[in-house]
Amino acid sequence: MENIYLDWAATGIPEEGTPKITFANPSSVHTMGTEARQLLEKARDKFATLLKLPGRSVIFTSGGTEANNITIFSPLNTINIKNILKRRLKIITTSIEHPSVYEPINFLTRFGFEIIHIDPEPNGIINPEKIYKEIDTEVILISVMAVNNETGAIQPIAEIGEIVEDYSVKMGKKIIFHTDAVQALGKIPFEPKKLKIGAASFSAHKLGAPKGVGALYTVENTNISSLFKGGGQEFNKRPGTENLEGIVSFVTALEKRIKELDKNYTKASQLSTTLLDGLREIRGVIIVPRERLQKPTKYSPYIIDVSFPPIPSEVLVRAFAQRGLMVSAGSACSSHRREKRGRVLKAMGLSEKVINSTVRFSLGYTTTKGEIEEAIKIVKESIEKLFRYV
Amino acid sequence: MENIYLDWAATGIPEEGTPKITFANPSSVHTMGTEARQLLEKARDKFATLLKLPGRSVIFTSGGTEANNITIFSPLNTINIKNILKRRLKIITTSIEHPSVYEPINFLTRFGFEIIHIDPEPNGIINPEKIYKEIDTEVILISVMAVNNETGAIQPIAEIGEIVEDYSVKMGKKIIFHTDAVQALGKIPFEPKKLKIGAASFSAHKLGAPKGVGALYTVENTNISSLFKGGGQEFNKRPGTENLEGIVSFVTALEKRIKELDKNYTKASQLSTTLLDGLREIRGVIIVPRERLQKPTKYSPYIIDVSFPPIPSEVLVRAFAQRGLMVSAGSACSSHRREKRGRVLKAMGLSEKVINSTVRFSLGYTTTKGEIEEAIKIVKESIEKLFRYV
Repeated sequence: MENIYLDWAATGIPEEGTPKITFANPSSVHTMGTEARQLLEKARDKFATLLKLPGRSVIFTSGGTEANNITIFSPLNTINIKNILKRRLKIITTSIEHPSVYEPINFLTRFGFEIIHIDPEPNGIINPEKIYKEIDTEVILISVMAVNNETGAIQPIAEIGEIVEDYSVKMGKKIIFHTDAVQALGKIPFEPKKLKIGAASFSAHKLGAPKGVGALYTVENTNISSLFKGGGQEFNKRPGTENLEGIVSFVTALEKRIKELDKNYTKASQLSTTLLDGLREIRGVIIVPRERLQKPTKYSPYIIDVSFPPIPSEVLVRAFAQRGLMVSAGSACSSHRREKRGRVLKAMGLSEKVINSTVRFSLGYTTTKGEIEEAIKIVKESIEKLFRYV
Repeated sequence: MENIYLDWAATGIPEEGTPKITFANPSSVHTMGTEARQLLEKARDKFATLLKLPGRSVIFTSGGTEANNITIFSPLNTINIKNILKRRLKIITTSIEHPSVYEPINFLTRFGFEIIHIDPEPNGIINPEKIYKEIDTEVILISVMAVNNETGAIQPIAEIGEIVEDYSVKMGKKIIFHTDAVQALGKIPFEPKKLKIGAASFSAHKLGAPKGVGALYTVENTNISSLFKGGGQEFNKRPGTENLEGIVSFVTALEKRIKELDKNYTKASQLSTTLLDGLREIRGVIIVPRERLQKPTKYSPYIIDVSFPPIPSEVLVRAFAQRGLMVSAGSACSSHRREKRGRVLKAMGLSEKVINSTVRFSLGYTTTKGEIEEAIKIVKESIEKLFRYV
């Protein structure tokens, strides 16, 4: 017998073909809702298991941006506004974070927080010593990304995790160590527990899963939950009807990416070497940062930055795109806000000239050798043509 | 020629079959990104046109919950924290709002806001006079939902819009009038401009579109933007990569719902009359609220609340579900948080006995006469059986 569905105010019957999974609202009490809830909890358990985490330590969000914002704004849930200006709470972060970490943290100065920005070394990597030196009893949050989204620089998360834990134990004080792991998940080995991370943000669509889905891991005994409020979903930590179909696709994709992580990493390393070798031959190219050539394992093989001064990034991107090669000018997330461009590269000490001509190549698990070779050819030909006009 | 896609750090190639629309990140500068942005802006224009609004007045969110929270937390973007406790800013709302309005507004008391909750009349409808009496120069936001998600009571949005505008003009002071229109969109006539609304929240999945998508309308010259920060998407009002595929499905579904709104409304009115007539015959039933029988046009025909005391709501929902009828115990969004149940019905003055036995039937545009007749039969038989154990 077909069900009679009279729970449209909870969620509607999808019109776009037969859904692969139940469409019911996981908060509905009826049979279909229960089924939806079981699917949701199965997805959560699977996600947690893949990252070697306890089941209820993961909540699903609308994306990496929301996961970052939940963590950063979380202190406002408990802070007493009357005392906020008397005590100067401190957050330590870096000058190379994604805008969805950098901007909300800066915003907290409005609430009396002191923000410490650690600059990277010229190689794009944060020196953990510099974080250690800034820790004191007023620090409540340290946020350092796992893999930089512009340079691919892998940050010393394990060392920072160690430092934060040592300090927390010594002082009997809980500091949350958060990492934006959007460009790490499914691409480089990443286990939050092993790295002593207190909170980690993830995004689905960077893995080939749908947009509009993300996740946030939080270690037990932290009170991280969204400042936004609502119907009590996700253990009361993130309100709003769960995007169940998106969540299931996310976990399915993640399982495949993690299963084939080593294989894909080896392949991506070979491809990035091929790409770098090819690009190095091209007239006027600057590899960003230079150290990448000496120490390739310190960088994600999935992200490669190069510069062709004095040709502006946008001109390069459009010239390549005309020939069918899609690359990015800086990170996509800030590329429509000119004023914010170049923050990461500037912090590394690069010149305006290099910064304004940088483009980012980023690879995925489907990228082939043929595509890389063709990409090199397109870049080479485009650059030759462009230099005629310089 | 196939494109070579090396912009995975912006977004990955979807693995689930061929995407119907471009998968690129609308913030990417290359050809595919530009195409994605054009699709996004086309969807935005379409959405705006369907509601007779200017194009850039609509932003897309992850759902109704986020749209509500963006509006409610927005004042914290500009308020000077040092003065926050000196001035007692006021918000007027009702005691029958969805948790995603009710909870964030209550939370703002932590920041020194004074919150006025207007109770509905016994018929579930807010008396605009009671709002008028509470307005003074300290009020910055008035939030009243368009259609109650539990009782279907249509609220006097036009009258409240008029009151707020009159006051704003008279005092030369901008008060934002926000409405949670999640249960109104595509179901009853709803034009924000005509209703003099300053901000309105919408959800996609209640219309048969995917979960994880919503929208927020804001009138020109308001500064409503998310407290959450990031990459500057949605005119810097809502950060995070746009869920483009979800947005396109949302707008496609909305177009159909609005095109056939009158036809569907007439059909739903007939079906709700049939349902109410059938349920009234059943032993021990109480229609919630009673006035619905005398003045059916004051309630959405898509949402019907009835009570069968003393049988608990959950028992009713499970008994019906066993026979294939899916209805809700209260609203789905709060049904897993027992302590919060019954707030709306309590505010209407209903007894605990009636509240604890209430179930909600909610219809959609695909609901048929046959389904309603079968539903009545299932309820009748279940109730007869259940009363044997009371």
